[in-house]
Amino acid sequence: MPRDKPLILADPTPRAMDLIFAPAERAKLERLGDVIAHDQGPMPDAMVDRHLPEATILVGQTAMPKERLDRARSLRAIFNVEGNFLPNIDYDTCFQRGIHVLNCSPVFALPVAELALGAAIDLARDISKADRDMRAGRETYGLDSNRRAFLLTGSPVGLIGFGDLGRALRSLLVPFHCPVKVYDPWLPERLIRAHDCVPAGLDEVLGTSRVIFVFAGVTRENQGFLGRRELALIRPDSVFLLMSRAAVVAFDAFVELVAAGRFRAATDVFPEEPVASDHPVRRLEDMLLSAHRAGGMMEAFRAIGEIVVSDAALILAGLPPVSARPAQRETIGRLRSKPVSIS
Amino acid sequence: MPRDKPLILADPTPRAMDLIFAPAERAKLERLGDVIAHDQGPMPDAMVDRHLPEATILVGQTAMPKERLDRARSLRAIFNVEGNFLPNIDYDTCFQRGIHVLNCSPVFALPVAELALGAAIDLARDISKADRDMRAGRETYGLDSNRRAFLLTGSPVGLIGFGDLGRALRSLLVPFHCPVKVYDPWLPERLIRAHDCVPAGLDEVLGTSRVIFVFAGVTRENQGFLGRRELALIRPDSVFLLMSRAAVVAFDAFVELVAAGRFRAATDVFPEEPVASDHPVRRLEDMLLSAHRAGGMMEAFRAIGEIVVSDAALILAGLPPVSARPAQRETIGRLRSKPVSIS
Amino acid sequence: MPRDKPLILADPTPRAMDLIFAPAERAKLERLGDVIAHDQGPMPDAMVDRHLPEATILVGQTAMPKERLDRARSLRAIFNVEGNFLPNIDYDTCFQRGIHVLNCSPVFALPVAELALGAAIDLARDISKADRDMRAGRETYGLDSNRRAFLLTGSPVGLIGFGDLGRALRSLLVPFHCPVKVYDPWLPERLIRAHDCVPAGLDEVLGTSRVIFVFAGVTRENQGFLGRRELALIRPDSVFLLMSRAAVVAFDAFVELVAAGRFRAATDVFPEEPVASDHPVRRLEDMLLSAHRAGGMMEAFRAIGEIVVSDAALILAGLPPVSARPAQRETIGRLRSKPVSIS
Amino acid sequence: MPRDKPLILADPTPRAMDLIFAPAERAKLERLGDVIAHDQGPMPDAMVDRHLPEATILVGQTAMPKERLDRARSLRAIFNVEGNFLPNIDYDTCFQRGIHVLNCSPVFALPVAELALGAAIDLARDISKADRDMRAGRETYGLDSNRRAFLLTGSPVGLIGFGDLGRALRSLLVPFHCPVKVYDPWLPERLIRAHDCVPAGLDEVLGTSRVIFVFAGVTRENQGFLGRRELALIRPDSVFLLMSRAAVVAFDAFVELVAAGRFRAATDVFPEEPVASDHPVRRLEDMLLSAHRAGGMMEAFRAIGEIVVSDAALILAGLPPVSARPAQRETIGRLRSKPVSIS
Repeated sequence: MPRDKPLILADPTPRAMDLIFAPAERAKLERLGDVIAHDQGPMPDAMVDRHLPEATILVGQTAMPKERLDRARSLRAIFNVEGNFLPNIDYDTCFQRGIHVLNCSPVFALPVAELALGAAIDLARDISKADRDMRAGRETYGLDSNRRAFLLTGSPVGLIGFGDLGRALRSLLVPFHCPVKVYDPWLPERLIRAHDCVPAGLDEVLGTSRVIFVFAGVTRENQGFLGRRELALIRPDSVFLLMSRAAVVAFDAFVELVAAGRFRAATDVFPEEPVASDHPVRRLEDMLLSAHRAGGMMEAFRAIGEIVVSDAALILAGLPPVSARPAQRETIGRLRSKPVSIS
Repeated sequence: MPRDKPLILADPTPRAMDLIFAPAERAKLERLGDVIAHDQGPMPDAMVDRHLPEATILVGQTAMPKERLDRARSLRAIFNVEGNFLPNIDYDTCFQRGIHVLNCSPVFALPVAELALGAAIDLARDISKADRDMRAGRETYGLDSNRRAFLLTGSPVGLIGFGDLGRALRSLLVPFHCPVKVYDPWLPERLIRAHDCVPAGLDEVLGTSRVIFVFAGVTRENQGFLGRRELALIRPDSVFLLMSRAAVVAFDAFVELVAAGRFRAATDVFPEEPVASDHPVRRLEDMLLSAHRAGGMMEAFRAIGEIVVSDAALILAGLPPVSARPAQRETIGRLRSKPVSIS
Repeated sequence: MPRDKPLILADPTPRAMDLIFAPAERAKLERLGDVIAHDQGPMPDAMVDRHLPEATILVGQTAMPKERLDRARSLRAIFNVEGNFLPNIDYDTCFQRGIHVLNCSPVFALPVAELALGAAIDLARDISKADRDMRAGRETYGLDSNRRAFLLTGSPVGLIGFGDLGRALRSLLVPFHCPVKVYDPWLPERLIRAHDCVPAGLDEVLGTSRVIFVFAGVTRENQGFLGRRELALIRPDSVFLLMSRAAVVAFDAFVELVAAGRFRAATDVFPEEPVASDHPVRRLEDMLLSAHRAGGMMEAFRAIGEIVVSDAALILAGLPPVSARPAQRETIGRLRSKPVSIS
Repeated sequence: MPRDKPLILADPTPRAMDLIFAPAERAKLERLGDVIAHDQGPMPDAMVDRHLPEATILVGQTAMPKERLDRARSLRAIFNVEGNFLPNIDYDTCFQRGIHVLNCSPVFALPVAELALGAAIDLARDISKADRDMRAGRETYGLDSNRRAFLLTGSPVGLIGFGDLGRALRSLLVPFHCPVKVYDPWLPERLIRAHDCVPAGLDEVLGTSRVIFVFAGVTRENQGFLGRRELALIRPDSVFLLMSRAAVVAFDAFVELVAAGRFRAATDVFPEEPVASDHPVRRLEDMLLSAHRAGGMMEAFRAIGEIVVSDAALILAGLPPVSARPAQRETIGRLRSKPVSIS
């Protein structure tokens, strides 16, 4: 018996339905189709297998090997409700059949960009350090407390990685009139220039920028590409903000250099999380610490639901999705080597 | 004997010549006229009196009562190298004779605005608090640490005071697409709207904004205008940033309300500075502390020198100054009641 | 014998190689691969068939039915060097095999947006009409010539169609602080709001905007969707700019309404081009006439070459293209019904 | 007998009260004080003399020699409701007494800037010329009509004069990402740089800019400063827009150079207005003609009333005006040598 409404299968673990769908969005989702959801842990295989043949939209990180895809004859889209792509999908089959595989990484761009900007100003002006000093009763006032402070306005900025995160940050920088250099080996110079940035090599970005933001994701090829040699290029009066993935940096060298006063830094990511209680990074005066909290805020999770509803509506109307991030043949193999989970 | 070059008398205490004039600016100043400077404390009276009759430009906070002005027949401008106007000048005589009395407050606008933005994002995202938590080994990760975090983007902003500081901040907010309400009883609605803001009453600004910035200077009339009643209007999920003068706020009530968790706040100013070592403000978890350091950074002091050189050049060429802030007949009496020294 | 360098087959008619590739871009293309080009009319079939088996990149509007695609085993991308997609390609096969089919429509966005803005100000201020009057010796001066003039700043704007063209125009409008409504049935409200616009129905856009821009492309479904009823909703003091395709408008009704003084308008497109020498549109005082010249300027054609080189370099490096516009499964069937050639 | 309300004397000829005060503004003016107005020609002397002793605000271009000022003991402000300052006021006495003398030139900034931008795009894209061609049945289509067209985006821009008009235009240029050079001998480099422009000499601006805007007012010293030699520096592919005063240009040379095809141009001003019916400027193909209509539009005249009401309210409240343009001791003597009337 043919369905009246398309079937939407929701298996959002590790996210709860209520987290990602505000009531109004959940209601919109219900209007789009019959929603069968399970968020008390991963949807049981039997449940997946029972509904998959009729499902048009799959919301979640459900394993989708070829056998399952072959039975999911109506399937038109898989929404990963995180910011990454997992290796548990037969992407080739999806590409051949035109099944959209999508993740929701764009929702994290603005949260990360805002925190990155706040952290950059914090480092440029020693905001949190001055706060600590005052709590400890050792503050100095006025110029004495500002000996190494500098204005972001006009300061040369370097962006390492220029995807959603980098572009969101670049927009926030507009009123600061900073010259911005970008290193991103996956992007052509033309696109970088179109965002009023100057393409540059990695060494140049590191050696000439006063404020350096790292937004690069991890791929098979780029682990540790910010090694000790590269970090040593950073100018002593510069600040360095690691906002994406700890694995792109030689983290021990990073900690050592900041400990030695070579430059000031902030990091939102760590090689192991939670960070060991005795890890030396916890005691660095010149390292602003953030416990993997740049992206995973309520407004981002709610935006996941909005993106899913919005793109599902387009797909069900026979139009292409425009909000979520599509998996692409060329990059999926590189990205999925290590799960990315900005949250 | 007439002078070949105009005489510039520099009495910049409490600032040193080297602080406010970078070498290149000092060289420009020397090209404009003969510079006689004394910065080892206030210029001795005898020295002032000897040179005043020939001085065209006076740089400093030198007392200038009527008797002195009467002898300073060539004087065309007095530059106060701070951000305030002092009551030690006979302003009426200056206004009558067209002697420009100028201060350098515009140089502090951008430093304060940048720090204010950084502090606002800090409060919205608990940046310094999360850093403290991680140093103390009590951090939480991801969403758990973000329960009260919110995006600045789109958040309703309120500005109390819309002079140089408020306008500089407003420019930095443009990419955040915030609706901005402004309370400033000295400014017409037309001007506020021209900056893409909505004029509003004080209570409305306090009660409807998620992020409230106080940039109001102190006048005879407005001391303590942000009293307990007004502060109580602030929404529990809002953040409040005191960036200008402690005297505009009922400071004890302010501290109590933040201690009680009524809202989060930041302050750069305190009723007494240095702050007493046992002042309760030092222990507030939800108060970001800054020891009067928003404006007084190196780049601001150097900008003072640039402004002085730039406007002195115009004045000596028979043109009006355009960079420094002129004293005005209407407001000088109100402002000078209490010296302002944003530094 | 395997090739040392990838083969790039260029069949750019109706464009010449020299038009779309500036010398520097042509040199870059040659570095990417062995370029075999023919631009003296369409590449002869024999020539296509000889080279296709080895070609990696095809630049042009060459017919590519399934038989040819089956022999083009190395093919990874087809660049249409116009702004449209033609029905002479077996798109399904391309989608299955992951052959990128791309057009260069993004290059026309900025040229069209700039001309559209210029035309809007022209209509708002009667620029070309006043110029005509002065040539005819019938000008009036000052306010007398400005009785129906209005400022763009703050005027309500309506955009019909919000693809590349609409978004480029929207960016140019930012300093004018206009409220902008958008009608685009292919896009979700979320995306429209993200560009600081308000989604609205067609009738609302037409009836409440002072300046209406039509950027909608033609699809199977939307021909003539701006009919007499819709055009009659336009306010008498509004201006209407047709910038995309004549077929979306009931053109005769459009001409009649402008002739009757119902509103002022500009058009860059006409149902038949060249326009008949006695077509009444040529004599309308309140219609700004542009002979399909909004997009097809030298800088746009040169940008085509830049896009091709830039995306070909990515594709040959195993990365996805980012500059050209990809054909999509959902929309290709709708778009290709009528060739689009903004040039 | 003392007045209950301040007296506002309105003598706005050549403007009518109804033109500059919309009903709502007129009502606000009436609330500020007792308004005595005469706009059927200049206010008769007897009427002026009768009311002047009690007047607090004077709105108009009334002659105010010393004798009258001496009797106007309550006078605090004179609003010239045009964009200029006339030599019929004893400015020295006003300056001494602190009577604000104000004009309303800021209202013309946005109208002129919008028209200037429209005219610049017109010239860059031959908008009005193409319209003329199509009316004459001699149009060409697409690229053939665009041989000399260029994008404003990224084009080097030169501004000659950087007062209200230049700054308003500069704001509108932001999305075009043009490098902007400014020549203004009255302004310091610092201020020019603060608007994201580069200060430059006149010859450099003329010789290196693709789009040149002239916004300079006329002073005693600068008549004809854009002489034949200077105009000859303009590049053949550039466009030149005269937006302020004809007297700053050697107009005959200007016409000759455009006639000779040396560059394209637009002008809103002419040495004599109305322009003689046989003036050769009327027949230039490459000159966009505008009959002194850039500023004098309804919205500008209404803004005059808003400025008067807004600043009068501040003055009556004991605060300084912030919207109108104040006469200044240094420049009034230079400016008033020739009446300026942008309308």
